Amino acid sequence: MKILMDLCVVPQVDGVSLSPYVAACQKILDARGVKNTLHAYGTNIEGEWDDVMAAVKACHEEMHKLGAPRVTSIIKMATRTDKDQSLEDKIASVEAKMG
Amino acid sequence: MKILMDLCVVPQVDGVSLSPYVAACQKILDARGVKNTLHAYGTNIEGEWDDVMAAVKACHEEMHKLGAPRVTSIIKMATRTDKDQSLEDKIASVEAKMG
Amino acid sequence: MKILMDLCVVPQVDGVSLSPYVAACQKILDARGVKNTLHAYGTNIEGEWDDVMAAVKACHEEMHKLGAPRVTSIIKMATRTDKDQSLEDKIASVEAKMG
Amino acid sequence: MKILMDLCVVPQVDGVSLSPYVAACQKILDARGVKNTLHAYGTNIEGEWDDVMAAVKACHEEMHKLGAPRVTSIIKMATRTDKDQSLEDKIASVEAKMG
Repeated sequence: MKILMDLCVVPQVDGVSLSPYVAACQKILDARGVKNTLHAYGTNIEGEWDDVMAAVKACHEEMHKLGAPRVTSIIKMATRTDKDQSLEDKIASVEAKMG
Repeated sequence: MKILMDLCVVPQVDGVSLSPYVAACQKILDARGVKNTLHAYGTNIEGEWDDVMAAVKACHEEMHKLGAPRVTSIIKMATRTDKDQSLEDKIASVEAKMG
Repeated sequence: MKILMDLCVVPQVDGVSLSPYVAACQKILDARGVKNTLHAYGTNIEGEWDDVMAAVKACHEEMHKLGAPRVTSIIKMATRTDKDQSLEDKIASVEAKMG
Repeated sequence: MKILMDLCVVPQVDGVSLSPYVAACQKILDARGVKNTLHAYGTNIEGEWDDVMAAVKACHEEMHKLGAPRVTSIIKMATRTDKDQSLEDKIASVEAKMG
């Protein structure tokens, strides 16, 4: 079962800068070969359910290892049985309707 | 690794009533012994990471089996290493501060 | 236009306890007469669009006043034109299907 | 009060294609001069609180006008008092940490 996901991992740490933590998550996704695209409010991910979920778990584990006592994730995700849609397809589909 | 989750599964189906689908997800959680509490905008869940994620996957699979071509989930979830917090603890903690 | 909302306000502060902040938001909702129900992962809200949005803004302003340099909200919300549905209706509708 | 937002508007309509609706929302944001960037799972928005919230309301109204009986939005949003951060700043900050 393929999944498209928007993942936003938020470690609770003292201080306001979260970007080193977000970067660490990006590296995990890249190292695992999980297709991803960073945007200003999260990361779009595409892959097999089990691979994607294993990567999300690895991100939580890494955030704790880096010192965050609490790690929150906000996720939007979808599975489809009617067609095989990629992240690029979703954007192209909207842009086509904008003319 | 224990996880607290707020899960909102939204199957895309013709017609506006989603409650039969939400009920089917509740039954899956109950049958698997995953602790959960329904609220008006989702279900709070508490359990071990792997058990909870397996239940979420089973919900997506069931929604597709029931005929939904696209199933979306919106998830907020957190893991903590500093203390063992339950769903009830979270509510009690806020209510105590409200006096 | 009536709106049903699930609101989760997360101030970024040093230390892990967020419950005093969540309690402050609850008090704002109550003081404004905005119908709300606390759950373990947020607050369900029901009301007129403008009233609800004004309350959300007041929560952000209050969190900043209490010292949070960054305040994040995660919101799920819906408007319907087909029927007038309350928070209680949503829960009752699922429970009825669970038999 | 400036706000950064990730907005995902989901009209509930018969049939699975949502892209014409997403395109209609993009047009509303553009017509109102609200800075936005489409990604595969939503739209990042930057602006003054009141302008952004008025645009979100206009999107819901337009979805209903286009025939959707129920319109759901999933929103992540943040306000900051410590610095003026743009959508581009957020991405650049992560990329800098990735080396």
